This record gives sequence, structure tokens and C-alpha cells, in this order.
Amino acid sequence: MSTLDHAIAAPVIHREHHRDADDDRPRLECGVVGVWGAEADEASAIVALGLHALQHRGQEACGIASVHETRFHTERHMGHVGEAFGGSDLPTRMPGTAAVGHTRYSTAGGSFLRNIQPMFADLDTGGIAIGHNGNLTNFLFLRNQLVGEGSIFQSTSDSEVILHLIARSRKAKVVDRFIDALARIEGGYALVAQTRSKMIGARDPLGIRPLVLGRIGDAWVLASETCALDTIGATFERDVEHGEVVVIDRHGLQSIKPFPARAARPCLFEYVYFSRPDSVVNGRSVYGVRKRMGQGLAREFPIEADVIVPVPDSGVPAALGYAQESGIPYEMGIIRSHYLGRTFIQPSQATRQKGVRMKHSPNRAVLEGKRVVLIDDSIVRGTTSVKLVRAVRAAGATEIHLRSASPPILWPDFYGIDMPERDQLIAANKTLEEMREFLEVDSLGFLSVDGLYQAMGETGRDEKTPQFTDHYFTGDYPTRLVDREIEAGGRDPVARQLSLLVSA
Amino acid sequence: MSTLDHAIAAPVIHREHHRDADDDRPRLECGVVGVWGAEADEASAIVALGLHALQHRGQEACGIASVHETRFHTERHMGHVGEAFGGSDLPTRMPGTAAVGHTRYSTAGGSFLRNIQPMFADLDTGGIAIGHNGNLTNFLFLRNQLVGEGSIFQSTSDSEVILHLIARSRKAKVVDRFIDALARIEGGYALVAQTRSKMIGARDPLGIRPLVLGRIGDAWVLASETCALDTIGATFERDVEHGEVVVIDRHGLQSIKPFPARAARPCLFEYVYFSRPDSVVNGRSVYGVRKRMGQGLAREFPIEADVIVPVPDSGVPAALGYAQESGIPYEMGIIRSHYLGRTFIQPSQATRQKGVRMKHSPNRAVLEGKRVVLIDDSIVRGTTSVKLVRAVRAAGATEIHLRSASPPILWPDFYGIDMPERDQLIAANKTLEEMREFLEVDSLGFLSVDGLYQAMGETGRDEKTPQFTDHYFTGDYPTRLVDREIEAGGRDPVARQLSLLVSA
Amino acid sequence: MSTLDHAIAAPVIHREHHRDADDDRPRLECGVVGVWGAEADEASAIVALGLHALQHRGQEACGIASVHETRFHTERHMGHVGEAFGGSDLPTRMPGTAAVGHTRYSTAGGSFLRNIQPMFADLDTGGIAIGHNGNLTNFLFLRNQLVGEGSIFQSTSDSEVILHLIARSRKAKVVDRFIDALARIEGGYALVAQTRSKMIGARDPLGIRPLVLGRIGDAWVLASETCALDTIGATFERDVEHGEVVVIDRHGLQSIKPFPARAARPCLFEYVYFSRPDSVVNGRSVYGVRKRMGQGLAREFPIEADVIVPVPDSGVPAALGYAQESGIPYEMGIIRSHYLGRTFIQPSQATRQKGVRMKHSPNRAVLEGKRVVLIDDSIVRGTTSVKLVRAVRAAGATEIHLRSASPPILWPDFYGIDMPERDQLIAANKTLEEMREFLEVDSLGFLSVDGLYQAMGETGRDEKTPQFTDHYFTGDYPTRLVDREIEAGGRDPVARQLSLLVSA
Amino acid sequence: MSTLDHAIAAPVIHREHHRDADDDRPRLECGVVGVWGAEADEASAIVALGLHALQHRGQEACGIASVHETRFHTERHMGHVGEAFGGSDLPTRMPGTAAVGHTRYSTAGGSFLRNIQPMFADLDTGGIAIGHNGNLTNFLFLRNQLVGEGSIFQSTSDSEVILHLIARSRKAKVVDRFIDALARIEGGYALVAQTRSKMIGARDPLGIRPLVLGRIGDAWVLASETCALDTIGATFERDVEHGEVVVIDRHGLQSIKPFPARAARPCLFEYVYFSRPDSVVNGRSVYGVRKRMGQGLAREFPIEADVIVPVPDSGVPAALGYAQESGIPYEMGIIRSHYLGRTFIQPSQATRQKGVRMKHSPNRAVLEGKRVVLIDDSIVRGTTSVKLVRAVRAAGATEIHLRSASPPILWPDFYGIDMPERDQLIAANKTLEEMREFLEVDSLGFLSVDGLYQAMGETGRDEKTPQFTDHYFTGDYPTRLVDREIEAGGRDPVARQLSLLVSA
Repeated sequence: MSTLDHAIAAPVIHREHHRDADDDRPRLECGVVGVWGAEADEASAIVALGLHALQHRGQEACGIASVHETRFHTERHMGHVGEAFGGSDLPTRMPGTAAVGHTRYSTAGGSFLRNIQPMFADLDTGGIAIGHNGNLTNFLFLRNQLVGEGSIFQSTSDSEVILHLIARSRKAKVVDRFIDALARIEGGYALVAQTRSKMIGARDPLGIRPLVLGRIGDAWVLASETCALDTIGATFERDVEHGEVVVIDRHGLQSIKPFPARAARPCLFEYVYFSRPDSVVNGRSVYGVRKRMGQGLAREFPIEADVIVPVPDSGVPAALGYAQESGIPYEMGIIRSHYLGRTFIQPSQATRQKGVRMKHSPNRAVLEGKRVVLIDDSIVRGTTSVKLVRAVRAAGATEIHLRSASPPILWPDFYGIDMPERDQLIAANKTLEEMREFLEVDSLGFLSVDGLYQAMGETGRDEKTPQFTDHYFTGDYPTRLVDREIEAGGRDPVARQLSLLVSA
Repeated sequence: MSTLDHAIAAPVIHREHHRDADDDRPRLECGVVGVWGAEADEASAIVALGLHALQHRGQEACGIASVHETRFHTERHMGHVGEAFGGSDLPTRMPGTAAVGHTRYSTAGGSFLRNIQPMFADLDTGGIAIGHNGNLTNFLFLRNQLVGEGSIFQSTSDSEVILHLIARSRKAKVVDRFIDALARIEGGYALVAQTRSKMIGARDPLGIRPLVLGRIGDAWVLASETCALDTIGATFERDVEHGEVVVIDRHGLQSIKPFPARAARPCLFEYVYFSRPDSVVNGRSVYGVRKRMGQGLAREFPIEADVIVPVPDSGVPAALGYAQESGIPYEMGIIRSHYLGRTFIQPSQATRQKGVRMKHSPNRAVLEGKRVVLIDDSIVRGTTSVKLVRAVRAAGATEIHLRSASPPILWPDFYGIDMPERDQLIAANKTLEEMREFLEVDSLGFLSVDGLYQAMGETGRDEKTPQFTDHYFTGDYPTRLVDREIEAGGRDPVARQLSLLVSA
Repeated sequence: MSTLDHAIAAPVIHREHHRDADDDRPRLECGVVGVWGAEADEASAIVALGLHALQHRGQEACGIASVHETRFHTERHMGHVGEAFGGSDLPTRMPGTAAVGHTRYSTAGGSFLRNIQPMFADLDTGGIAIGHNGNLTNFLFLRNQLVGEGSIFQSTSDSEVILHLIARSRKAKVVDRFIDALARIEGGYALVAQTRSKMIGARDPLGIRPLVLGRIGDAWVLASETCALDTIGATFERDVEHGEVVVIDRHGLQSIKPFPARAARPCLFEYVYFSRPDSVVNGRSVYGVRKRMGQGLAREFPIEADVIVPVPDSGVPAALGYAQESGIPYEMGIIRSHYLGRTFIQPSQATRQKGVRMKHSPNRAVLEGKRVVLIDDSIVRGTTSVKLVRAVRAAGATEIHLRSASPPILWPDFYGIDMPERDQLIAANKTLEEMREFLEVDSLGFLSVDGLYQAMGETGRDEKTPQFTDHYFTGDYPTRLVDREIEAGGRDPVARQLSLLVSA
Repeated sequence: MSTLDHAIAAPVIHREHHRDADDDRPRLECGVVGVWGAEADEASAIVALGLHALQHRGQEACGIASVHETRFHTERHMGHVGEAFGGSDLPTRMPGTAAVGHTRYSTAGGSFLRNIQPMFADLDTGGIAIGHNGNLTNFLFLRNQLVGEGSIFQSTSDSEVILHLIARSRKAKVVDRFIDALARIEGGYALVAQTRSKMIGARDPLGIRPLVLGRIGDAWVLASETCALDTIGATFERDVEHGEVVVIDRHGLQSIKPFPARAARPCLFEYVYFSRPDSVVNGRSVYGVRKRMGQGLAREFPIEADVIVPVPDSGVPAALGYAQESGIPYEMGIIRSHYLGRTFIQPSQATRQKGVRMKHSPNRAVLEGKRVVLIDDSIVRGTTSVKLVRAVRAAGATEIHLRSASPPILWPDFYGIDMPERDQLIAANKTLEEMREFLEVDSLGFLSVDGLYQAMGETGRDEKTPQFTDHYFTGDYPTRLVDREIEAGGRDPVARQLSLLVSA
């Protein structure tokens, strides 16, 4: 099609909108994939396929950087992986035996092309490309410091801070510089970097964000979830450990633990919502955990009813668990359209509301005249749920019993999950009965925190040294929140820096 | 103006590729929506929402024509409805109180912009826009005749024949002209037309293709399926009957039955695969029929196993039915990515194969060490199934028992379903045992034709006057196949006409 | 580049806006090129180069149709030829040994993609593609008749009428059908058509619009102007004669004169403004005619002054003629930016005004303190001129003497020139002195009609049988104006037909 | 939906091609415009109009940054100013009372979107946007140093060095930082910067590159040439002096001369070719200088001939001068198409050759049987000239006498002019007679260096302290060439840094 040829000629190349500057906080949930040592010119295609498998971790934008001898090729696009990197010309466009890719979701404010990863820098040791899943809790503190020293930032992303810290490290070798940078950042992260000769992977000291290691032929693979390994046909080797740095080059894999040993505390929300059901995260099947969440929920909040109906797709495994535990038939009482993304991760508030209306359709044949147990993975604001409840009731349900397969969400996240502030979280602002009324349901139940820990295979939460990151349910943040403390101190560290409103 | 300004800057506007002329047969499955009498300037937005609900009937292209006083506004786009017509500026771009829309899938050869509907003509009685779901079996015969009389065709679509027949009718009134045209066409069709003052709907004499009538406020709605009514908030009035023409204008609705009465014979494949599970087609819940197909299958082909696993999404209701009937647990053993469309309706063979590999991921936690019953809605070529079987086995399944919720597909379709020729249909070329071997499964079973009729609520197929269109299973075509006969007579009626290869 | 891949995905391909339906009259000046018998796969590239040389005849859109064996390839684009057809992949995109191309300018109302030529039809004798320069004066009369008989028009272009007349002719051979169609149309036209085996060229009975014949190797070329022959390296053979039809096929060239002989009357405006100065039109060098216009003007309206300044670029040859005749130095007192097209042919009135301001810059070094003779090719509305006069005066000119190298324009054109209606023509509404005042100049002079005929090499206008088409100066239209008569009779033949407002 | 809307929606926005890495040297000729203190929201529109007037200084890309209160808006586009910034929505897209713009041409290798200016940085003193015309001769030296200190470059442009030097300056105030940066750079430059409250302009110590100061109402304007002031309706105040820094804020204009006084040495090529004829550069009318160049040429190389023919457009003023001095008639013997840019500044070598063939058409009516004096502004490789000579001869010229209005070009430029290396310069590799033979002309003459100085109003070149930058004719470079020295020393300072090949 000729539009193509002409797109090159077309005067407008890109224009980034930044409508609400106050909202431009770099809180994102993302996916990363890296490949090292692939057959000639296959690395970018393998990474693309892996990113496709991680599309659920970020649907707004994606990028790949490949390394061909000493040169890097990078492309960054708005939109889905299949559209951006699905073409058969990818190996020609992006040759090389190593590559790193990133898929990204962000709040409306940060939808900048320049924020799309991987981020690249030409150091005096050669080029480096980095993909980052997670969020730094001392990003703004570090950014201000670096700008004060003369660093020029090209994005509003916290990931760029890491790049500048590496660039400014006085160490001679790039791995040492990388570790120097890690020593200064706080928060949750899974990092994959490519230099001219090495792939480097790293996971934060608590292992909040996931990262797994695999092999495909002689090549090494790093990815956020095992489903990416499955899709590309790689074998799973092991999880990268919390606080571990892995360096892969022609000498093989080297594992470094540069920081003092601490107990791991992986994020529970990966199991509740983020990870794909066929992934195995930190040794646990996500599908299995979710089914057990539903089973626990059936034990904690049993009810006499005719049908168990999941809110598709994320509520499906818990609903199956609830149905198997309760003996009540499981039915597809709500049909989900596959032609829009999932509500939780649509760019704007407007689309979010519209998305719900158009995404879920009640299946009257299943619901009419029935007592319905509706199973959702979690309840955040509650606004989505109430619309669904009304639709189910309009389709003829005589009773609706809503069950959340995770505990009440009470606190915001600062480790890479885009979640509203506390004043918008329904459970932080209403009693259970108030919520039941607001949600217009006949009964309401949330899985308990201990119930969730049990679904994870624990006997319960260890209050002293909790096994998982669970602050959204408990308020117990696993790290310092430096930026948050500065903000609370009345100084907005952002406003001074972000002079650039719209950029193309 | 948009494209226009831009088109000026960007020299190329569109260019249609027609790679394989031999494949340019207008066999398409589509969806149509029409609205008449909406609030000022809302018709196009309602139609857009309705088309979105029918997106599963055609994902390749879509179009809308709105009527504003005596003027028509039309837009036709490649791609999904949400992208093309999701913008809030639609009422401004396409004002009017009446509109008709169409969503379209076609074989690779016919992906022409000029083939996208609705099709429009300026008659001497004023403009008319038509959307057509289905396929004419005497299209080429009529096209040749019309070209011989001096008609100039702008598309390779059979729908344009209808427009020319209307234009050439000697009748004075547009409804009479419309009926004149219907009298000459054969095949399966659901038609929705808008003129300056009327909306006209029509369904073929056998009711092969579906069409329903609804109301939203004072406005009238015509749509391919009830799910479109649900999505736009319209109430279901009734099915348009087989052979019925409905004319809606300021005097209300008028029903015309211009042709001799015949028994209805709706298409079974709407239930097997095409329609959305929450739709009610010809009075039957699609979800209910599919569950009963699974239940019948469990009775016809029981097996000792550990888990029932659907091929998502179209196999889900039958798998639930099979599980409920057999008492074996239903599990999500295959995870489907929502980031590609469904295999059956991808434009090119290449994408079709790639699509499968990337769309379905086995969920090892469910499959490992298990005896698996795999439920699919139907088996066409078998190439998709065997890949899935291998993937399930690679994930650790010890036995795989494949069940098709519909009978063996033996014959091609000519009424609007894109289905391969007979030599590519696995069931038409292999015995059951050969198929089992080819598909690499431990056992294989297809629902019987009578079993399917029973799922439809009949006691079985009435061999003399079959209740449904079912030639793909039985070879019993419900109408003459004029074009097919001409082709069989050794004259290719197409080659002479289609001089235009590539057009922009 | 990925923009490419994505353009395919992008839902919008084109959208045509039609803001002012009243203005949608097909008055256009265009250029045509045809090649027959070229080396394999070179025809489209030769046509593209020829169109580039004719870009001044139409800058808004362009199209090419090539014939490869029995198949046609067509592309139609908004924008310039170089952007649309400048790529090296053209022979692959548009193979064949014959091709026809068209470049187009139109009024705002008609900027439809579907109006871009060449127009194509699949007749029962095979495909035919036609390019048309000119305008039919009985277009609407014929269109109404054809629509009444059931023809469906896809454009609002008069050229499509010709295609329908050919399609409906009862003659067996395509050349006879073509002549059948010519017998029914009136107005000015140069036509180039390609069928599967023939190229056909035709010029209207009076030869109003130009068409020349050339050869490049063994191939035949038809083009609007000789400059196209020069650019592609073809030799000039001869003008196609008024009323002549030339048919070129493997038997060579056949000349047909189907209609009774009449005297030629070519359009003077081709010399005044349209044709390129290096073209030889009907045997006369355009540059030479223009210089003689300037010389005649110097004789008819001499003045004492310091510098002769042309309005670039169209006023340059006349200014050189005036300078040589008067002995006053010629200077570049106005600099023209090459980054916008020429005022006369910008799509919208708004752009037209803006264009002038940004296109011409006075050169103070030449103008300051000088008595200036400003030479323009013609004066239409006068609004452009007065802005220029003010700019020249602001740059320090002490006197400004404006000279038009053509006579006052008093009447509109209906043969393919986009010219305003009479009420907007300054000379039709003001006396010479009123014009001088309006234009804010110290003196004003227009070349006389006889002076123009003398520049053409005649002794003067033959009032009985004028040698040229010159109604814009004299009101003496060379043909009947059927549509104009119908309109004058109070019936608007357009309104009923054009139901389609916006189309994509 | 418009292409524009889609550009935003469409996943791919831009991709930069970098075909020949060896050619990626930042040698560019550009234009800059800055406005400070405009009426609310008009600054960007004024800058856009000014850039349009400077389009001849760079046709490949353009950008604008506007300052609205403390926020910056930037847009950077490939293509012409009119296409990128011609829309009426510009004040909405880019509000503010101050703005800076840049138009850019570069060699093929550097056509990166990220190289388009203005460049922007968020310093701890707030944002700063910079536009730069010229070239730094110690760019690579400084870049290496900065990268070694941890600066991350986002472009391959020398202008980014200035930004990093400002960011790293230890001074508190932005003007002091700016001067700090100037102290470290060498070469030719005209700079315009905008901060939140100030506009800063600067010209290199020798005034190699031009910069003028004007006023429009109460607002201040900085621009590369006076033609930009004329187009926007600003009055010319004065040239910014060599080595001068002007700072404009609410206190008015402050002039700073931070470096020791030196004699000015502006670039002669601005007069020979670059600047627009209606501009007044350093107090001299470009048109006047060029005419005097032609007059001097007529005196130095007189010839008996019939017509003086310019190579349009740059040879026109010199040809007029030659004609007036010699008394031989001036004629438009070569017609230039306005539909491609000028040969000298086309991106690729391939286009350059093609451009010539399609840009200039000989006007046979003027040339046939004539002795022709062909006047060009300069002769670089000679390959363009010889094609033109052949075309003129093919059109019937009996003798061709080629005259270059500037001296032989013998040395490359490093101050912002894209000129080939010495081994490609015809005059550096052939004797006059060899050139005459190569160019296939009957005689050949170049204006002498002293002749050029005389056209500039001097009595001749002052060999001790030359009045102008003229190394391309004399080899006398006005500054050190640090990067060139390093390269000559065998170390390629670029190769190590530019790891990034293709980026989107």
C-alpha cells in the first residue's frame, strides 16, 4: 500500500500529547525481554514474540533495541507489539544476535514517545540499551541531583535516571558502573540491559518485580514471566533471584550479588491480577494460586446460589475454584468483547468508563431468574463493578453475590503498579456494608489476607517478616519512599523540572 | 478536513492490493446495523456501537453511511470499528437521524477499499446506501449481464449487483425497485438500506442469514444479531422473517412478503461458530445451543479423563456442557492471547498459521500428567488442531481426546461463509481413523448431525424438509448455485471482467 | 520504517470532504499523458515523468493507469506527481507497456479522491482507462439522462459521463463506442484512453484544449504539451488536429475524423497563462508569444520609468519583451518563494489570499526610489494585484505603472479553466479608471485583443471567424452551453443528483 | 478520520533512516528565527512565517519551541515549514509570547528526527531551547570530553554540545552559563535561545554566519536574514555583531561582548548562493552583489554572443548583470520546474542527479541557432553543469560559453555549508582547460577572487587581514579546525561514539 511510502514524506512525524502535567508520574507496569547469543539476526524477532506474550503487562507502547556487532538499532512505537514488530522485515530492520525489548503502560500524562523504552545511551564504553519494569521510589530525588550536576534528561521516566547514573559512574567497566547505579536506586525493578558484548539482568533486593532466566538453543533469555519463554519455545532455567545481577557474555553466565542478603518479598499483585495465568512466578502457578483464591473465598464466604459467574477474563480461575469448592455450576454469564483492552489499563479515564460499558455483555440465557455469585479478582474504585452488577441485574438475575478473590485494597502502590490514590480506593473509604450498598449487591465478600497467603501455599501471613509485598492490603511498604517523603515535606520535586509540555 | 488536508500533504491516500486474482471471490461473512428515527445526529454513533458488538462477524474493514436530510455522508475504513468510528467527533463527521453500517471480513483477494460497504448510489429517486451480509449464488451471472448492458462496476463485490439492479429497475418507487432487484438475486442475504426517507430491511427467502428488529426510544434498529441490540441499549422486537421486506419511514413499519411462502432454513453455522454466545438467533440462545452440543457430545463420545479443556474461546460453552454432562472438571488448560483476532478469520494463509502459534498457550499447571479431553467447536482443515494437540502434549498431557462439537465439515459454503474448498477439508478427505492419526490424538469424536439438530431443540434432522441450512455437513445445498454451474460448465465468468488488478 | 507497517493497520485510508456543495462544479484545468508500445514495464515511469513536466496544469492530484497484458493497474493520489509516482518501485507497482496519466486541479468543492483520473471501467469488451483535460458543456444534461437510465456514477466529474456513454454504446468495437460517446458530448476536451490493445487520443472539434503526438523509440506518446515530450526525451511528431481521433495499436497509427470539418479555434489562455513557456502549442512558442505580448504592451502603453519588474513567474517573458521594446532595464524587483504553488491554482480562497502574502517579496534594493513598471500576465479579481502593489510601494517605489499582458477578462470559462464568475471579475465590474484606483497604481494598461492576436502572429482578430477561443475577453463562446442554458432556465440539474456529501 | 488524528493514534510515528554511517557528519546550513514579547499566543505563528521565508536555508526538517509562562512546547517535523506549521491551529498547539524556530538541511546520514532543532533541555534553572545555524569545528573533541564525564547525547548534532556545556556550567545564571559554553566552542554559529524569561542571540567571533535583529510592534525578533523580517512585517534594527551576545527580557535589550575584539570575517558564500536575493546581509543587498558579480564577470570574461542565459534561479541576478554590462540580450533559455527543490540541497546523491534532469528544461525557441553565454552562480563538482550544457546544445545552441559568477571552489567548508570533499571539487582537480573540456563548452570563465571582493564593494582582497571568510576559494580557513586535526592524526573521534544506527 502506498500510504506507506508516503508516510515518510508526510510532514507530521510524531507529536506527543501531555494533557495533564500533574498526572505525569512515572508509575507503570511493564514487561521486559532480553535475548543474547541468538542465531544471526534472530534476536529482535525472538524478543518481539516474547513481548507479544507479555502484551498484558503494557499495551500502550513498545520498543526493541538490537545489537549488531558494535552498533545498536532501536525502534520505539505507540501501540501493540504485533503491529509494531509483527512484520517479516524485522530481522532486516533490526539485525543482531542480541536484543532487549519492553512493553509499556503508563498513566495518561506520560504517554510520551520519548518515554518509551528501551532507553539508549552512548557511553564512552560504547552503547547501552536498558529495559526496566518497576518503579524507583527515589527517582525524583536522584533526578534533581543529576540535573543539578548538568545531566540533560530526555524523558520523564524514572528509568532514565539509571542510565545517567551509569554514565556518570567513575568505574571503568560497564558492569561495575551498572552496579554503582543499582547502589543508589530504591524501589522495585527488573532490569535487562544490552551492551556491545554483554546482556545484564537485575532484580531488586526484595524481588518485588519478577524476572526469569531461560535458554533457547545456545542463546540466553531474560523475561518478566515464563509465558514469554513458552511462547518463544525457550526452556525455563530459574528465576533471577532477589538482589541478583546476572551478566551473560561469551564466557557464559556470571551471577553477582553485590548487596547484603535480605529475605525476598515478591509482589502479591502479580498473582492477583498482573501475570498471565499460564505463567509460573517465583515457582508458583498463577492459575493454581488464583483457583485456590476462589476455593478459599468459597470457604470464607459461602452462599446458596444457582450459578457462579466470573468477571472475564481475570476472574475466571477464581470462579472455577469457587464453583468446584461450592458445587454450584460455573457459567459464562458475562461475555467479554475481545476488541478492546482490559479496563484496568486503558490510557484515559474517559475511555476507562466507556470501555466497561462496551467490554462486558451479560448473557441473559444464563442469568435470567438466577441467583448469581459474581467473582472478580479485586475491587479497586468499585465504579466498574457497580456498572456490571446493574447490567447483570437488568439481564434478570434475582440475587447478586459479589466476591473479590483478593482482600480489600487500602493503600496505593509505588513499585510499578498504576493504582489510584487512597481517596479513590473504595475499601479505604467505606465499611463493608457501605460498599455492599454502593455496589448494589445482595452480599459482598473479600478474601482475607491470610486466605490469600494460604492460596500462595503459606499457612498465613508472617506478621514480623511478611513473605510477600502486600502494602496495598496492609499498608506495610517494604522499602523507604524517599520521593513520597519529600512530597509530604511540602516540596514538589517535579514541578520545577518538567518545563516541556508538548514535544514532537 | 482531515484526510483531505492531509491527503494533500501525504500524497498517497490508499492503494489496494490484489495479490491473488484467482482468490478474488466475494465470499464473506459480515455484520450489518441500521438505525432510523434517532435523535438528531445520533444515528451514526448508535450504528458504530452496534457494529462494535458485531465486530466478530468481520474484522477487516467497516463503513457507515448516515442520512442528513437529503444528503448522505459515508466513510469506509480498513480495520476495526473502534479505531475507525470510536471518536467523539463522529456525530459531527456523520450527522443525521438515520444510518446504516457494515463490518466486513473477506478473503485475501478481495481486500479492496472499494469493496467496503455500505455501497452508495445516486439514483434519480435520490441516494441509497446498502449494507449486505451474505452471498449471492448468481452474482457473476448477473454481473456479466449488467456489464453487457453498460453498467460500470466499481467493486468486485456481489453487493454492487443489487445496487445496479435497483438503479435499472423501471419502477417509479424505490421500494418497488428494491423488490425488483430481490426478485433477480439468489443466495443468502440480510440487507439493510437507507434512502432519503426510508430504512429497508430484507432477509433471503430461506432466512439463511440472520436479521433482527429492535427499538431504541422511538427509533428503529435492524441488526445481524441481538447482541448489537443489547450493546446499544435497544429492546428486541422480533426477527425479520425469512423472505420478509420491512420498510420503515415516518408512517411506521410496513411488512412486505413479495415472494411465495417457503419454509425457513436458517444457517446452522451461526450457532456453531459465527454468532456471539450472548445472542439469541431465530429464538434460540447461541450459548444454550453450544452447551447442549457439548452435552450431546459427552453422550455420543464419552471417555475416562481427568480434565475437560476447551479450545478458547469458541469451544468454551461446549466444553462446559461436556464437563457438566460427564462430571469431569472443566479447566483452562489453554490460555488465549487477546491480542490477535481469531484464527478462522485472519486475511492471509501465512498469518493464519502464525496466528495459531501465538494465540493459544498451553497451561502446564493444568495439563501435566493429565488425561485431557480437548473440545473445539469444529474442525476444518485440521492443521490448526494438530498444532494445538502437539502443544498440549508438550505441556505434559498423557492422553488427548479431541471432540468436535459439530459434525464433520464435508462441503464448502456459498452463502457468506469463507470456507476452504472440498479438497482442503480434512473430513472430506480422510476416514475417522486417518483423521485421528493425522491429528495425533488418542481418540476423536464429532457430534452427529442429529445430535446437532437435537442441540437446536429438534428431535433430529427432517431428511425430507430439513429445518436448517446444513450443506457443509450434508452436501444438501438449499438453493441453486448458478455461478457454480456456469463454472462447472467450463466457462470462467470472472476472468473477462476483472481487468483491474491494483487500484488506488 | 514502521510507519509503513502501521499505515496498513491504521483504520483511516482516505476521507473526502465536500464543504460547499454549491461549488462542486467540475471546472478543472488538467494535463494528460499517454504512452503505448514502451519497453516492458517502462510505460508508467515514462508517463510519470511526463506528468511531472505537466505539473503546472494541475497540482492537486494525479493518477496513472497502466496496462499489463489484459490487466490494468491504477493508482490515484492527492498531491504532486513526484511524491506519488517518483519512487523507483513504480515499474513494479505498475507494470506494462502502455499507460495513461492525469494531473488535476479543481475547485475546493471537487477535491474528491473518486474524482481523480484516469477513470476506469470494466466493459464487456475489456477494461478502459481514460484521462480527460477540459470540460463538457452538456455534462449535467447527459448525467441526468444516464442516471435516469440506471447508470451509477461514482464521481462528480464530467469525465465519468464519457465512460458511461462508451459503456452503453451498442457498437461492438471499442473505438466505435468511443466515437459514439464523442458524438454526444460538447465542450473542450483532449482525451487519452487505453484499452487492452489500443491507445486512443481525441481532441474536441475546435481544438480548444491542446494535445500533441510524439515518439520515443518505437513507442507513441500523447501529451497536453510539448514540454512533456522534451522531458521524457521524446520527439515531437505533430499536434493532434481539432476533431481528430487517433488510434494507436500494433498496426500503427490510424487517424479518424468522425465529424464534419470545422475551423480550429484553440484557447488563447494556454498562451497567456497555462502552458509552460518552453512548450510549443499549435506551432507557436509560448515564450515567444508572451514576449511579443510584452512588446505589444510597451507599444500600446509606453511610460517613462526606471525599472521593468515582472510579477514572477508568469509575468517574466512579457516583462522581458516590454523591457527590450522600451529600453528600460529589467530587474527582479519581486522575489518569489518556491515553497508554495502559484496563486491562481490554490484550492481554497483562504489559502489563495495567504499564498500571495507569503509568495512574493519585494526586493527593496531594486525598488527603492524607483519608478516601476509592473508586468503581470493577466488580472482576474484584482485582489492579488493590489496586495502586491502595496508591497512594492512599501518597499520604496515612487511610481507604479501596472501593465496586463492580456486584455481585460470579462467572461467566465466553461472549457476547463477554473475562473470566477462574472461578478468577481474586476474588469467586468469597473471602468479602467475605477480599476486603476482600486489597484492603487499610477497608471494601468491592458494589451488589446488585436494586440494579443498580433502576438499570436495574426494581423488581428477576424471578427467573423475568430481564429481563437477568446470568450473570456470577448464573450464570444465557441460552442453551445447546454448546462448553462438549463441552469438559466431555473432548473438546477445538479442538486437532485449529488446526495453524497462526504465519502471515504 | 484524518491522517492527522491517525498519526497520533497510529502506533508508528517516526523512524529515522541512517543509511550511510560514514556520512553522518553534522555539516548543515540552516536558518533560525526567534521572537520575544509578542502578543499572547502569536509567537509561534510569527516564527513559522519567518521560517517559511528562510526555507531556502534548509528544506529537510523544521522545528519550533514556544514558551508559555514557565512551560515549553516543542514540535519537530520532517519536511517544509508550510506543511508542518502552516495550520491555523498553531497558536493553540504552541501558545506563548516567545518562540524560537529552526529550519534544517543535512547530508543524508544525519536525517534523524532527533537531530531536528530547536534542541531542548530542562536545566535546574528551568527549560532552555536553542536553535543553531553553523558548525562547530571542535564538536567531536568536546563531545568525547562530555561523554567521558557522563553526559548522554540524544543526537549526533554538534548543537547538542552547546546544550551540555550550558547544563554543566557551574555559573548560577543562565546567561553566564551560555557565555561559559560559547567560550569553549569554535567555528561558525548564529544562535538563538529561549529560556523562561529571556531570548538570547549570539554570533560567532568572526561573524561567519549571519544574524539580524528586528522589531515587530513591541516584540523583538532575531533571524538569519532580513527577508524573514520583511515577510513577518518586522522592521530591521541592525545586524547582531560578530562576537556579540544579545539578551532580551522585560528590561529590554542588553548587548554583551564577552570575548576580545577581532575583525569580522563574514562568509562570502552567503552572497554567492545561500541568502535570498532580497536579503540585506551585513549591510549589503545580496541581489546587488550578485548583479555586480555578473558585471565583473562580463568585464573579466567578455565574449561575442547572441543571448545571455542564466541557470535559474541562482544565476539570474548575475546573468542580468552580465547582460547589462555586455549589452547582449538576457533570455529565459532554461525553464526551471518549481516542483522540486534546488539541486544543491537535495538529500541523496541519487536524487541530486535525477533532480537536475527533471528541474531544468531548455527553451528551444530561445536557444536554437544561438551563441549562448550560460551564467551560473558557482561550479562545484561540474556534473550538474555538464548535463545542462548538453541539454542546451541539444536544443540547438551553436556555441556555449559558461561563466561562473564566483571563483573556482578549491577547498571544503567546515562552518555550516554542505560541500563535497576536495577530491570531488572539479576546480581542485583539473586545469581550466581540462574543466572546459569536461564541461563540453566553447569557453569557460570564473570570476576572480578580487572581482568577487569588488562586487562586495571592496577594492580587492586584503591578503593580510582578509575582509571575508573565503577559504573555499583560497584555502585560508579563519579558525582552527580541531576535529579535522584529530582526524588527520589518525584517530577517528566519531566511530567510537555513534553506536546507534537506526532509531525510532
